[in-house]
Amino acid sequence: MGWVEELSEIVEVFSPSDAYAYDETPPLIAPKPVQNFVVVKPENANEVSAVLKFANRRKISVFTRGGGTGLSGGAVPTEEGIVLSTERMTGLEVDRENRVAECGAGVTLKQLDDAAFKNDLSFPLHPGAETATVGGMIATNAGGVRALKYGTMRNYVLGLEVVLADGRILELGGKTIKNSSGYSILHLLVGSEGTLGIITRAKIRLFPQLRDMTVLAVPFPTMDNAMDCVVEISARMLPLALEFMEKRAVEIGERVSGEKWVSRDGEAHLLMVFESFDEADEAAKIAQNFGAIDVYAATTKKDRDRLLRVRGLIYEGLRKDIIEILDACLPPAKIAEYWRRSNELAEKYGVDIITYGHAGDGNIHQHPLIYDGWEKSYFEFRKELLKLAVSFGGVISGEHGIGAVKTSELREFFPEQFDLMRRIKLLFDPNNILNPGKVVGKI
Amino acid sequence: MGWVEELSEIVEVFSPSDAYAYDETPPLIAPKPVQNFVVVKPENANEVSAVLKFANRRKISVFTRGGGTGLSGGAVPTEEGIVLSTERMTGLEVDRENRVAECGAGVTLKQLDDAAFKNDLSFPLHPGAETATVGGMIATNAGGVRALKYGTMRNYVLGLEVVLADGRILELGGKTIKNSSGYSILHLLVGSEGTLGIITRAKIRLFPQLRDMTVLAVPFPTMDNAMDCVVEISARMLPLALEFMEKRAVEIGERVSGEKWVSRDGEAHLLMVFESFDEADEAAKIAQNFGAIDVYAATTKKDRDRLLRVRGLIYEGLRKDIIEILDACLPPAKIAEYWRRSNELAEKYGVDIITYGHAGDGNIHQHPLIYDGWEKSYFEFRKELLKLAVSFGGVISGEHGIGAVKTSELREFFPEQFDLMRRIKLLFDPNNILNPGKVVGKI
Repeated sequence: MGWVEELSEIVEVFSPSDAYAYDETPPLIAPKPVQNFVVVKPENANEVSAVLKFANRRKISVFTRGGGTGLSGGAVPTEEGIVLSTERMTGLEVDRENRVAECGAGVTLKQLDDAAFKNDLSFPLHPGAETATVGGMIATNAGGVRALKYGTMRNYVLGLEVVLADGRILELGGKTIKNSSGYSILHLLVGSEGTLGIITRAKIRLFPQLRDMTVLAVPFPTMDNAMDCVVEISARMLPLALEFMEKRAVEIGERVSGEKWVSRDGEAHLLMVFESFDEADEAAKIAQNFGAIDVYAATTKKDRDRLLRVRGLIYEGLRKDIIEILDACLPPAKIAEYWRRSNELAEKYGVDIITYGHAGDGNIHQHPLIYDGWEKSYFEFRKELLKLAVSFGGVISGEHGIGAVKTSELREFFPEQFDLMRRIKLLFDPNNILNPGKVVGKI
Repeated sequence: MGWVEELSEIVEVFSPSDAYAYDETPPLIAPKPVQNFVVVKPENANEVSAVLKFANRRKISVFTRGGGTGLSGGAVPTEEGIVLSTERMTGLEVDRENRVAECGAGVTLKQLDDAAFKNDLSFPLHPGAETATVGGMIATNAGGVRALKYGTMRNYVLGLEVVLADGRILELGGKTIKNSSGYSILHLLVGSEGTLGIITRAKIRLFPQLRDMTVLAVPFPTMDNAMDCVVEISARMLPLALEFMEKRAVEIGERVSGEKWVSRDGEAHLLMVFESFDEADEAAKIAQNFGAIDVYAATTKKDRDRLLRVRGLIYEGLRKDIIEILDACLPPAKIAEYWRRSNELAEKYGVDIITYGHAGDGNIHQHPLIYDGWEKSYFEFRKELLKLAVSFGGVISGEHGIGAVKTSELREFFPEQFDLMRRIKLLFDPNNILNPGKVVGKI
């Protein structure tokens, strides 16, 4: 690390620590961080540019880090180099008139939510972690429970300030919803997980405040009933959220939250959120037609929160017992069949999986529980499972990204796209200094 | 054209004709088509692939053509070569359960609309021409009046079948709203105007049927009043459409449609469409608070159509008298100021412009009227005008694309992005055979 002294002439350099070596990827699947890295905390694009010019010249790897809430090892420093934390890029200004938040990359979801709210606006995107940063959400094209109505992070990004590997600073897009002005380099950067450029600022679209919410909790005798209902509701309206849980997931959510769910009966349960009471009413009728055991409506904040907590805490209740969290995304009408077939596959491999997720947009979370000797059979099972999702017209990651943990599947299932992605990577970053090894693997 | 015989062994070859030489770009600004081209009408990706393999080997230019409704000369054959028409790629199937239309590139907007409607779904995107094709709308990232609520074409494209310059066929995306599986080559293709690959099929997101519409027509004393009202309404709800017209535009719409608009008073007029009566009601109150001269509500289909025709026919009424149709997109709160300053600029250059457009999303249509000696001063005026839009945080094209008509502004205003776009172009199409000269100019 003879280069550290030179780097410290450019920017303040901090010693490595575990806080910058890990993200929230479950440990069994996470990439192993190196020990020989330093941390920098640039305050703006010019400082990032100076760091990158240096790193590019000296061919030193740079791992960009946002809130560290990623689940695919995207922020883990896996080679000697620099961890570039966005934590000091926290400028945040709301242009209420144009419904745009201008944010530093290090602004957190919570800060953005609060700022929007103070301006009588909202940022509806709702991925799991409130400490996720704007830069990180853009870099992974984060999703969450409200994508059906409001889209994923891609849908919110109107403009980006990005520093390329050679230190050039680009201003992409503008404060506009429409843009047909040449190739969208902006949309290429969204979801590129720190491998094509470093996002330093963003113009984020805000929406009018969400309307009063009505929450329905609906148990169904079978997964098929539940999913037929999901399909019909989605064809008639755009709920704010349309979540499903298999029975065991409900039980885990109950245990961790200390809340009682609406029913112990039924193989599959839906949790639906609407911005209009009329829609909730129509959805309740549809649910009854599709064989719902019962329909529970929560209109008070207290009741709503109780139900949302059961769903919201499933992951918390499982995290110590799981190998990882999968997030394939499928055509929604295929969920029941996929669920059945993935359970068959799990049984064949002796794996126990727990399934729930975003039924409205087809994004399924599956948790394989840790078992003895999992290292021997798990990765083959996982590959088969993701292949199954793709065979249904799905994708291997709906919201967590490829990071360090799914490059081999990306390459195997989509060899020509993978090749093209690699060539794009080398066009943007010829020395392969930006988050090397992630998304497109070792080059 | 010694290559035509060899090409005809691969695919049926048609003689050139004017129908394949022009699009709807206003003639004064349109690129001049060559005479030495032939037309092919492949039926699927394999045939397109065969054509491209041949063209790439022989370095023959290929100009992809959809409905020919473009306004930037994107489909005009400007060099000896092949016009590849998508007109035979008309397969169309609606997967109602997953709310996805699987379309050949040559499916028209009208066909897609009808198919969605027959399945109790809708395709809300509403660019001008019903004969526009799916492939063309994707290639230009088409917009129209409903982008505020439902987004531009980009928002509808879930999957693409694309043939690259070397003949490789890629399947991008899937039938899913969420996708975080590596770089989005799909979103790079959206808006690439036939220069990076040829779109042969697409998976298009459909939405629930639109709710009953209420239309408000609201004259305002000044453009400032009107735009302040637009800003406030947009902060409170998502109207289906939020259009504005300066007074002269209204008069032209009245003349062509034969319909009477609601008022002759007022400098600026809004036409607003809502999917909910409550929203229309709230918007009407806001309009009154912002100085509306009056608020006219149309709830019957007949009344609605009458008002929409006035707005819808402005372009028709102007097309013979104009140099072109500009489509800069601005932060919506800047429209009034931009309008004022663009009128000052026009006066300075002796140009007469008529302005109207999509106030909700900031996409402004400006028609410079033809004047004696326009060739001498117009292009300088136009550059200043687009520069003004960019200085407000806007973009030079909101929905029509760069095509052949705005490459010099793209290059001048965004030199580093332009350079990067060129390098992306050459990565995808090293022999520069795909729509050469368009978007990134002559290489």
